[in-house]
Amino acid sequence: MPAYSTNMRLKFPILALTLEIITIILFAVFVVYDDGKHGGHGAHNNATHHEETTEQNPLTLYPMFQDVHVMIFIGFGFLMTFLKRYGFSSVGLNLLLAAFALQWGLLVQGLWHLDEGKIKVSIFKMINADFSTATVLISFGAVLGKTSPVQLLIMTLLEITIFGINEHLVAEVLKANDVGASMIIHAFGAYFGLAVARMLYRPALGNGHENDGSVYHSDLFAMIGTVFLWMFWPSFNSAIAEPGADQLMAVTNTYFSLAACVLSAYAVSSLVEHKGKLDMVHIQNATLAGGVAVGTCADMNIGPFGAMIIGFVAGIVSTLGFKFLTPILASNLCIQDTCGVHNLHGMPGILGGIAGIVAVALGKKDGTVPFSFSLLRPSSFRSAVMQAAALASSLGFALVGGAMTGLIMKLPFWGQPPDQNCFDDSIYWEVPEEEEGEESLAHGDHSMNKAEA
Amino acid sequence: MPAYSTNMRLKFPILALTLEIITIILFAVFVVYDDGKHGGHGAHNNATHHEETTEQNPLTLYPMFQDVHVMIFIGFGFLMTFLKRYGFSSVGLNLLLAAFALQWGLLVQGLWHLDEGKIKVSIFKMINADFSTATVLISFGAVLGKTSPVQLLIMTLLEITIFGINEHLVAEVLKANDVGASMIIHAFGAYFGLAVARMLYRPALGNGHENDGSVYHSDLFAMIGTVFLWMFWPSFNSAIAEPGADQLMAVTNTYFSLAACVLSAYAVSSLVEHKGKLDMVHIQNATLAGGVAVGTCADMNIGPFGAMIIGFVAGIVSTLGFKFLTPILASNLCIQDTCGVHNLHGMPGILGGIAGIVAVALGKKDGTVPFSFSLLRPSSFRSAVMQAAALASSLGFALVGGAMTGLIMKLPFWGQPPDQNCFDDSIYWEVPEEEEGEESLAHGDHSMNKAEA
Amino acid sequence: MPAYSTNMRLKFPILALTLEIITIILFAVFVVYDDGKHGGHGAHNNATHHEETTEQNPLTLYPMFQDVHVMIFIGFGFLMTFLKRYGFSSVGLNLLLAAFALQWGLLVQGLWHLDEGKIKVSIFKMINADFSTATVLISFGAVLGKTSPVQLLIMTLLEITIFGINEHLVAEVLKANDVGASMIIHAFGAYFGLAVARMLYRPALGNGHENDGSVYHSDLFAMIGTVFLWMFWPSFNSAIAEPGADQLMAVTNTYFSLAACVLSAYAVSSLVEHKGKLDMVHIQNATLAGGVAVGTCADMNIGPFGAMIIGFVAGIVSTLGFKFLTPILASNLCIQDTCGVHNLHGMPGILGGIAGIVAVALGKKDGTVPFSFSLLRPSSFRSAVMQAAALASSLGFALVGGAMTGLIMKLPFWGQPPDQNCFDDSIYWEVPEEEEGEESLAHGDHSMNKAEA
Repeated sequence: MPAYSTNMRLKFPILALTLEIITIILFAVFVVYDDGKHGGHGAHNNATHHEETTEQNPLTLYPMFQDVHVMIFIGFGFLMTFLKRYGFSSVGLNLLLAAFALQWGLLVQGLWHLDEGKIKVSIFKMINADFSTATVLISFGAVLGKTSPVQLLIMTLLEITIFGINEHLVAEVLKANDVGASMIIHAFGAYFGLAVARMLYRPALGNGHENDGSVYHSDLFAMIGTVFLWMFWPSFNSAIAEPGADQLMAVTNTYFSLAACVLSAYAVSSLVEHKGKLDMVHIQNATLAGGVAVGTCADMNIGPFGAMIIGFVAGIVSTLGFKFLTPILASNLCIQDTCGVHNLHGMPGILGGIAGIVAVALGKKDGTVPFSFSLLRPSSFRSAVMQAAALASSLGFALVGGAMTGLIMKLPFWGQPPDQNCFDDSIYWEVPEEEEGEESLAHGDHSMNKAEA
Repeated sequence: MPAYSTNMRLKFPILALTLEIITIILFAVFVVYDDGKHGGHGAHNNATHHEETTEQNPLTLYPMFQDVHVMIFIGFGFLMTFLKRYGFSSVGLNLLLAAFALQWGLLVQGLWHLDEGKIKVSIFKMINADFSTATVLISFGAVLGKTSPVQLLIMTLLEITIFGINEHLVAEVLKANDVGASMIIHAFGAYFGLAVARMLYRPALGNGHENDGSVYHSDLFAMIGTVFLWMFWPSFNSAIAEPGADQLMAVTNTYFSLAACVLSAYAVSSLVEHKGKLDMVHIQNATLAGGVAVGTCADMNIGPFGAMIIGFVAGIVSTLGFKFLTPILASNLCIQDTCGVHNLHGMPGILGGIAGIVAVALGKKDGTVPFSFSLLRPSSFRSAVMQAAALASSLGFALVGGAMTGLIMKLPFWGQPPDQNCFDDSIYWEVPEEEEGEESLAHGDHSMNKAEA
Repeated sequence: MPAYSTNMRLKFPILALTLEIITIILFAVFVVYDDGKHGGHGAHNNATHHEETTEQNPLTLYPMFQDVHVMIFIGFGFLMTFLKRYGFSSVGLNLLLAAFALQWGLLVQGLWHLDEGKIKVSIFKMINADFSTATVLISFGAVLGKTSPVQLLIMTLLEITIFGINEHLVAEVLKANDVGASMIIHAFGAYFGLAVARMLYRPALGNGHENDGSVYHSDLFAMIGTVFLWMFWPSFNSAIAEPGADQLMAVTNTYFSLAACVLSAYAVSSLVEHKGKLDMVHIQNATLAGGVAVGTCADMNIGPFGAMIIGFVAGIVSTLGFKFLTPILASNLCIQDTCGVHNLHGMPGILGGIAGIVAVALGKKDGTVPFSFSLLRPSSFRSAVMQAAALASSLGFALVGGAMTGLIMKLPFWGQPPDQNCFDDSIYWEVPEEEEGEESLAHGDHSMNKAEA
């Protein structure tokens, strides 16, 4: 790849300020405070009822919102700090992208469901805005280290928009269940990111890159992200569930799925290393696959042991994916998946979608509308078909949308890093000198900056 | 500065134990559990009503209290760990000062509002105690690295006391609105700290200090603080708001102000660096200015886009302050502001106060007392004057109180560090050897300890 | 100690997968979702009433559950990362053990209280499962760095089971009060771990080990654990208290006990160092002793100042223990207590038990059953005897159970590390190369791996 200018001095500020100003104008036109009177809908098919029941205290969902918030900003942000020289970008660009995505997501989701011509911001809508953000951060993981902030803002804008279309289709048209969003967030975000990564393929990175790896302390920073994601995943999967028994069920299923997933991920990690050692990449990621995979049927009556089986299988699949599938994707399919999102979000997301199809076919999802009469309830078979259609829709929008987005991101004037400067903060950030060995770092800084035009 | 004794073996334990014992005695005399029957007031003008409405479940505010708690202890503590050799002091002294401040703050605030001669501890009062703590931690940021634990405990004692007077004046006498405390916490804490820093001016640090900077991992630790502050700021600004719609409004305004602030802070950070790179100092701090600036009018009907404009402007002002104003303060006004609290809390706090004056003048704050009759409601003009008086009072108490406190802290027997040992944990902490390069560190240790008497 | 094989490739996966599969089968047989109809009991004597009152919203306790969850996974996990080369194991094995312990704990606790032959999972039961986990993590601290993952899973299995017996005895038979679990978690976990450590005594470590210490950044990681534990301890001590005034009292007492404890721990830390410096080991641990010591009487009417006195004393006792008692335990009693759990959980736990005996004898615990008649209430004397019996039972089960467990863990085929590889992640983990000084690390890696068979 030729050494394009990576100087962002004009491109990035102009883009960021323009996007924010447009967003503020759209907010001025469309967004008002929630007044507690709802004619509209949330992002999911049970939203209307849900908002009605929490009308009396508009902050009932606030603690769960904050748990999700922590997952988005600390969880995703620190999970990606595992790279030795890319921590500033991981947590810093995570903050930038998420801050824009949550504004844009609120608009995109809200425009589908205007209420008296307005988007009325409730905690419920803020949770959904955070959810839309998650798709972007998952895709960010696939292209981590190989994209400029300008490219990433463009990806955010497009991905959120496409996400909004698919989500509307899945929730409102197909009326599929996906309370924990295995399909519409995890599978969508992963395959969108993989499609982008395919478009941005860099042959020169085929033999690895000296900065594409961790150091001891960067792995510990990443564990901050892992553990916060792990702990608060029950909130993610239950935040928009029907209050009461369904929400408790979603918490319970996710809690046990994650616990079982830890045991299988650790076991398989040790099993596939020739010396029986544990691998931090597996521990940081595969332990979370249980939360992804149980998402779609989190609020279904699958039993705690059913949730555990899902988590147990997800931990195995995810760990094996990191060990065996990621190298194949890179070498055979030209998909360089920096964080292995295919293993954490992609396959477990599909697994979750399939589990949802099976669970719905078995009648594990009792009517989402209270007081529904059994005669009026759609048959389990029809529901299962809708679930399958939702999964297919999510994958289709992700792959096509991601490929189109990747093509736009490939245009040669977005300040993308040259191959030798990938996975390196110093191309977009002021990086301080090192504590020890300053000579060696002076040298390092020199080589790092050589591609700046 | 002469090399005073920095050995704290007697001074510090005697002061800390004495303060704690006095505090316990005062608690024995004045502090009782909340019994749910309130004749008293909280720290703010809407407190009485507020407490009544939450009387039935005394723990309704507990999740918001814990969010604020995380901001105080993790947020402020880790935000200041950016210095390469001052992380122990940053997070450790933050814990020490906050632990004392919350006890002292509860007493000082409670003594203004005795209820049957007692201070009845509720979650609401614990939140206000945490709030008073924030002023001290903001001031701590201004003098970070240049003060001894003994000096800092003295500052805590005095600052909290002066804060209590100003807060009483603002909330009870002027009856000004400051739900998110732009004026009484952020502006007050910043200008108090700057006044102290002016008194403790060290000319020898004018050319910088080798330890007054970050290393790669210390900047990542600081981001833990930044992100937790950013996420939980909606709780800070809404914790003591009127329950219901007002509280939701405070959450919503803060959430969007912060999001808009991130975009403008990143954009300007890139714009002012000659290579268009992002600067961690700006990212760690200026992204939070939106939370400060929207504080006063967080519970006013300014519209989500109004909040975003405030945050957008705050991000710009704060970043420009770090780039251009901090050096001028140091060189021209002899104010060495280690953390740049003027840019994060000072200017955004004043901005918040001004926004509050404007919003109140425009009638955006509907009566804080429910069922008030419009005829009885004070005119918007009169309210705006009260807001301006509150801002002036906060700045006045801060500057005068900070200067007096600084003079006391300057007395030469509080174990302050010599210039060459500033920004260095090893003068007050046992610091472990380094992982690598032990010879170079042995040397470092030697030079670090040379000033110990 | 001879160099046993430390290769875990078969042992560990087989054990982990077997345990998880057995657990899933037991869950399939016994565990169902909570249906809100309770005939059973929680783990504590006030559970029945408690669950009834929260029946209407099954997620009332959810925010407190998440606080406890953060303490278990972030708090304990990062607190133990202080060792320079053992961070992966600290936070990683913490996650593994806790994920298994919470499943096993739910089963063990639930089997004592079957409801229609089933264990009905509520948030209340999930909190108790997290509590049982805490005992294992405390014991883990005593043997940190000297045990294999296989040994630790065995310890988890046995300790949880023994914990379940003692807890049943204390709560249901003796009907003792221990809302914050000073006795049944902290003292139990500490003395269990110390008994195990005694069995696993390694004379070769008597002169210290080069990796048995911290580096600068590892101490900062540990502070993440400390501060989260400190902040959320009020949730730990109040989570299963009677809702309403009792729960508020438990929050209040813990909050002030911890605040007072910080001051005394800092003061004594400075006092016992010959240069008056603060010691990170004390700050990381002794500041938390106030939370442990106030546990048993957290929901008793001891007054805020009473709680502060308990915390104040606990901070002193704990710091002095680290300074003077830990070396004596190691040299005279052959108990090598890596994290000093005796000082943080052992002695403060006993202090808490004694404070509970005194408080109950003084009648500070009003009847746990509302509307109880004074004539029917057991006399304070009898209650105090039951408290003392509960403390004795907890210590007895811990010491005997820990010794038996230690004997089993000593069997020579669990892959325990040789002495020279203690406190070193690289024996059980893939450890990345270092950032700087790669030659020296290549050497380090070589020596680290020399004991692998």
